[in-house]
Amino acid sequence: MDTRDRITTTANRLFYTQGYNNTGINQIIKEAEVAKSSLYQYFPSKEDLLVEYLESTSLSTNSSLRSIADKHIQPREKILAIFDFLLDFSIQTEFQGCNFQNIAAEIPQEDGRIRALIRNQKNQVRKLFADILKPIGKENLADELSVLFDGAMVASKIFKELWPIRSTRKMVEKLL
Amino acid sequence: MDTRDRITTTANRLFYTQGYNNTGINQIIKEAEVAKSSLYQYFPSKEDLLVEYLESTSLSTNSSLRSIADKHIQPREKILAIFDFLLDFSIQTEFQGCNFQNIAAEIPQEDGRIRALIRNQKNQVRKLFADILKPIGKENLADELSVLFDGAMVASKIFKELWPIRSTRKMVEKLL
Repeated sequence: MDTRDRITTTANRLFYTQGYNNTGINQIIKEAEVAKSSLYQYFPSKEDLLVEYLESTSLSTNSSLRSIADKHIQPREKILAIFDFLLDFSIQTEFQGCNFQNIAAEIPQEDGRIRALIRNQKNQVRKLFADILKPIGKENLADELSVLFDGAMVASKIFKELWPIRSTRKMVEKLL
Repeated sequence: MDTRDRITTTANRLFYTQGYNNTGINQIIKEAEVAKSSLYQYFPSKEDLLVEYLESTSLSTNSSLRSIADKHIQPREKILAIFDFLLDFSIQTEFQGCNFQNIAAEIPQEDGRIRALIRNQKNQVRKLFADILKPIGKENLADELSVLFDGAMVASKIFKELWPIRSTRKMVEKLL
């Protein structure tokens, strides 16, 4: 891995598992085994690392969700597969909920740049639902599915149990 | 207000509006206009202030939700009134989402004491839904309503728009 990759891999892992505010630049430098000057060369501020974290997580999340949907033909199956993916995601050892929801709770209300990135990601998931459902004329359900997607993640994070995602899947089945 | 109340009112406001990690003890001391020694007398650690914040918010939230439900006779109306209350809550100037979800995103995974308080609050809301629906034999919907309640709050926080709560209300109507 090159220096920049070592920095971003380490920062992304720490921001997710410990939280953004609980992670100091010095810990990232130490665990990535890079010089302080290298880190500042690529990322002049800690917020630049946060932007990179959100942008790369957004790309990988959307790519995963689209490839899961692509494995199915029927819109209904595509949507259910996305919610089944949440179940897999939530049983990972390091599961800490939704990366974007967590950052939204950590940053100040007035941080417009970061809030826009988070909102943008949530709008992309919402648009994915709409795109999938358009062929059967049910794209108006995208808003409801979007709330269910976020509810499943936050509730399973808090309870550390599987019932929130199973209950959500039931609602998705009823909706579609 | 006595000293202890001044401390808790200030800490609760700052924890909610700026976040727990973004709030230092010195800011609480300054804005509450109390001596450092008084604060430490009542709250030996910052975590003790967090426990107080979660416990008092839990009491006031549950009391509000119960009194809203009590204004209606039919279970269905009681539940819808609770979701209408979310709409009022979300249009407040200081709206920053759910106090408990936000703290869950800020504290380390291994903080069992705080996580238990958050889970306990979420279980109380879930139980309230079950209690309301029991007379009509629909208490099995409590898990689904609980996910919807959390989803509405996190989505309206992120989007800063009203559609997440309106979409949630639609789903509640369909479910009941």
